[in-house]
Amino acid sequence: MDAVNHQFRLAARPQGMVGREHFDYVEEPVPTLGEGQSLVENLYISLDPAMRGWMAEGRSYIPPVEIGEVMRAGTVGRVVETRGQKLAVGDYVSGWLGVQSHAVCDENSVFKIDADAAPLPTYLGALGMPGVTAYFGLLEVGAPKEGETVVVSGAAGAVGSVVGQIAKLKGCRVVGIAGGPEKCGWIADELGFDVAIDYKGEDVGEALREHCPEGIDVYFDNVGGDILDAALARLARGARVVICGAISQYNKMDAMKGPSNYMSLLVNRARMEGFVVIDYMARAPEAVREMAGWIAEGKLIAREDVVEGFESFPEALQKLFRGENVGKLVLKVADS
Amino acid sequence: MDAVNHQFRLAARPQGMVGREHFDYVEEPVPTLGEGQSLVENLYISLDPAMRGWMAEGRSYIPPVEIGEVMRAGTVGRVVETRGQKLAVGDYVSGWLGVQSHAVCDENSVFKIDADAAPLPTYLGALGMPGVTAYFGLLEVGAPKEGETVVVSGAAGAVGSVVGQIAKLKGCRVVGIAGGPEKCGWIADELGFDVAIDYKGEDVGEALREHCPEGIDVYFDNVGGDILDAALARLARGARVVICGAISQYNKMDAMKGPSNYMSLLVNRARMEGFVVIDYMARAPEAVREMAGWIAEGKLIAREDVVEGFESFPEALQKLFRGENVGKLVLKVADS
Repeated sequence: MDAVNHQFRLAARPQGMVGREHFDYVEEPVPTLGEGQSLVENLYISLDPAMRGWMAEGRSYIPPVEIGEVMRAGTVGRVVETRGQKLAVGDYVSGWLGVQSHAVCDENSVFKIDADAAPLPTYLGALGMPGVTAYFGLLEVGAPKEGETVVVSGAAGAVGSVVGQIAKLKGCRVVGIAGGPEKCGWIADELGFDVAIDYKGEDVGEALREHCPEGIDVYFDNVGGDILDAALARLARGARVVICGAISQYNKMDAMKGPSNYMSLLVNRARMEGFVVIDYMARAPEAVREMAGWIAEGKLIAREDVVEGFESFPEALQKLFRGENVGKLVLKVADS
Repeated sequence: MDAVNHQFRLAARPQGMVGREHFDYVEEPVPTLGEGQSLVENLYISLDPAMRGWMAEGRSYIPPVEIGEVMRAGTVGRVVETRGQKLAVGDYVSGWLGVQSHAVCDENSVFKIDADAAPLPTYLGALGMPGVTAYFGLLEVGAPKEGETVVVSGAAGAVGSVVGQIAKLKGCRVVGIAGGPEKCGWIADELGFDVAIDYKGEDVGEALREHCPEGIDVYFDNVGGDILDAALARLARGARVVICGAISQYNKMDAMKGPSNYMSLLVNRARMEGFVVIDYMARAPEAVREMAGWIAEGKLIAREDVVEGFESFPEALQKLFRGENVGKLVLKVADS
């Protein structure tokens, strides 16, 4: 076994685009186990938009990563040693073990996963935090009704691609907004979205006017910025806007762009509501169970975009913020 | 009787601050009555922030006033002639009879009001549209619970002053934001708000931090702009933001300022919701009945700021948008 633990630790808080200069690559000995602990070798590391927020200082829904700390990340790994009761060597687990090749953890801080039921990276995507986010954000906050028009931005991403598919399963008309023909082709042709709008090639406002003639009933926002504004301008009476993220704004040097069209909430008696998936963690098993069923039946397509090599973590993160991934972006750091 | 009908008709759609140049002052003969109609002499004309929106072109919750049309306004007047069944000469009525000295109306388009129960201008304020707006906006959309912290902007205005007093009656801690020591003194000393923040003399963000140490549970927004942003930055978990108006933005030449801190909705699992009082018109009698009771018991203070003289309508409207009124601004156009 590799006795070296490879890590990326937070070195500086980014202004603007995140990059390699904000991390320190560190090698240190793999730690030794205490009673009740397990050593996990990470196989896949999750790359999530939320990471940009965790790198920033200041009040948020969870504390920021401190300078010098191992960068926070969701992970899937394999138990390589254990002094606990519940896990065995060879078990696969998901958890929050950070951007490092190895981690020592308490048995109760990770979840055992079934490598036969789904590919390992799917536990970081449709069957992980992004999937649970999509499930509860859409169904509990957006509360779409059959026949309604649901619009989702970041529609080819980890959350958006699941949101649109669940909305279809619930009988909604689904319009996805994504960047470029590859992503748009994927969501329309393979995921079954009714319409794909390419924000890089089309005027989003005009396209929404054309494709949502009766307005938008639920808008699930992952991106913020101009696309949020365009969607607000097309709300239907009583619309629900779900604020899940604002990836277009996270790496900007200047101040966050607020939605200039927010008075559309008044005109249309609409609401805009934020949510954090952590609040639904107790109910995550019900979401994962239902989505695993849909995947098994072929009703929900889970796709991961796998970048290889632990050392390419900073560039993989940039790929995410440049919107170059299709499906859930994960970093593969070791063979399963 | 004065046989001349004095009118202000919309002449041009304003860009920036509204002024006399956007209206035509017109004199024409008082119209004659048809069967079932009444002639009303307007005594008080309501000056409302919403008027600015009605002067603009484009989709909103009601159609804009057309160029050449008498400017839309709420009114209180006296029946001076009638060919109907329900109204008698001398009756006082409230309605939407516009910025003119006289109007012919259908009997069912106006409401008879009791001049002994409250001063006539109060029927344009606490017992009129602003009061009903405050009542349902706070209680139905904001849904404050006893002990919660309620913040209201435009707190010395027609809607805000009622919102804050109702919140106090419901057992909330109430912080009002208003401009200048006179307004702040009035809401704190006479209306019983717990705190008055003077946005002209204080940093609103700092003041909210000081006076809302556990965050804002309900923010009732009448003003938009920087004050909305400051309030968003101080939301408590699960907060409700009621979007009632954005008077700071209505007369700006440049684009509406969106709330840059809207991601606070996510961090705090909060919602921002717009509403239009028209939707509550069927329930207005219940609100007016309860508020009239509070006024009679001295629990709710209604105050009007009365400007005299029909011909000063454009300047009175500017006074409103400059925030120079304390309480409900009305134009007195004839003696009762």
